[in-house]
Amino acid sequence: MFSGDYDKAMAALILANSARELNMDVTIFFAFWGLFLIRDPDTVSNEDKTTAEKMFGMMAPKGPKELPLSKMNFSGLGKDMLLGMMEDDEAPPLEAFLAGARKKGVKFYGCKLSMEVMGFKKEEMLSEVEVVDAKEYLKDAIESDVQLFI
Amino acid sequence: MFSGDYDKAMAALILANSARELNMDVTIFFAFWGLFLIRDPDTVSNEDKTTAEKMFGMMAPKGPKELPLSKMNFSGLGKDMLLGMMEDDEAPPLEAFLAGARKKGVKFYGCKLSMEVMGFKKEEMLSEVEVVDAKEYLKDAIESDVQLFI
Amino acid sequence: MFSGDYDKAMAALILANSARELNMDVTIFFAFWGLFLIRDPDTVSNEDKTTAEKMFGMMAPKGPKELPLSKMNFSGLGKDMLLGMMEDDEAPPLEAFLAGARKKGVKFYGCKLSMEVMGFKKEEMLSEVEVVDAKEYLKDAIESDVQLFI
Repeated sequence: MFSGDYDKAMAALILANSARELNMDVTIFFAFWGLFLIRDPDTVSNEDKTTAEKMFGMMAPKGPKELPLSKMNFSGLGKDMLLGMMEDDEAPPLEAFLAGARKKGVKFYGCKLSMEVMGFKKEEMLSEVEVVDAKEYLKDAIESDVQLFI
Repeated sequence: MFSGDYDKAMAALILANSARELNMDVTIFFAFWGLFLIRDPDTVSNEDKTTAEKMFGMMAPKGPKELPLSKMNFSGLGKDMLLGMMEDDEAPPLEAFLAGARKKGVKFYGCKLSMEVMGFKKEEMLSEVEVVDAKEYLKDAIESDVQLFI
Repeated sequence: MFSGDYDKAMAALILANSARELNMDVTIFFAFWGLFLIRDPDTVSNEDKTTAEKMFGMMAPKGPKELPLSKMNFSGLGKDMLLGMMEDDEAPPLEAFLAGARKKGVKFYGCKLSMEVMGFKKEEMLSEVEVVDAKEYLKDAIESDVQLFI
């Protein structure tokens, strides 16, 4: 999960939830913008951060609700329209799929290098996030049946 | 196929056509913006649609010709330039690769949830589109040798 | 590698370098915008190019340094900020990961059709780039354990 877009996160989490329901093991490796999704909206820690890291942390989306659409976002208008259409069809929002993935035991990895560069601390992320590097991701990926870069 | 961009659809369909020529089985699962590519340009059905769904259906691209570029689109100028360069090299346009994929027997799946949210009816899509959910996609993906999220 | 973005190229090359360090064989098939990354910044050849191809060649990024961010680029400002944050953490820039991948023997394929359409000549690309078509890519992909579309 590289992307920080609402719609792509939706795709990733719907697949993750569906896979768990089929009893498949699922790991999501969050890197770069993908880390926005697993920031804990209730925890900010500005200790030991550079000014750039603090600014970046403030500007960047925090958790599922704040992610923009990858297309037709129109400063949030397009996203509101999509959310309205989802509500009309009783499709749950991204938060529900994130909560579902956590409950169903999807494994969450946070990319060590991305977290260092963006200045995100482990304690600012959802509690189940394990911090791993690209090699650990690859060792996991090579054993898996399906791998997607989202 | 998650993306609704001309260039990404081009990549997906060139791979699909090439794979069929190598006698591989190919399935494309169209979700979210990817559904734009397989809308039937000649069929609109506004029955039982909410106002938002009707508006969305009008604004969203309909079929291969109307898709924008993911980069350097410049309100269509960049796309025209690319199409001109393709013509100079006698490279076929997206419509040809879509027609090729249909003729060569690439299987087309439309994502059930995305279609419900966007208000796209089965009869508004190309005739061979089967409507399936994420689980059915996953069962197919886990049996396949190559999976790409485009 | 379809994308021509700095951040996505970073993700691709970090994975490629890490995989080589784990002794995995790695091939990157560069298509469409992805070709920008492997243009040789020191070689331009305008012979036998149409006007459109010359213009495109001038406008398009040339090599790793010139690639924009996929998100929050803000005409280069966001990229400068990210590069500054990377420097603060002593994270090497994209050029270093590209040099690393070349040194570690990552195989570089350039997509034949994309190169023809964009007017990129073999001699304008990094010296190790082999020009192959989609079928050759697929034959390689089907034998591999992990495939990602970036």
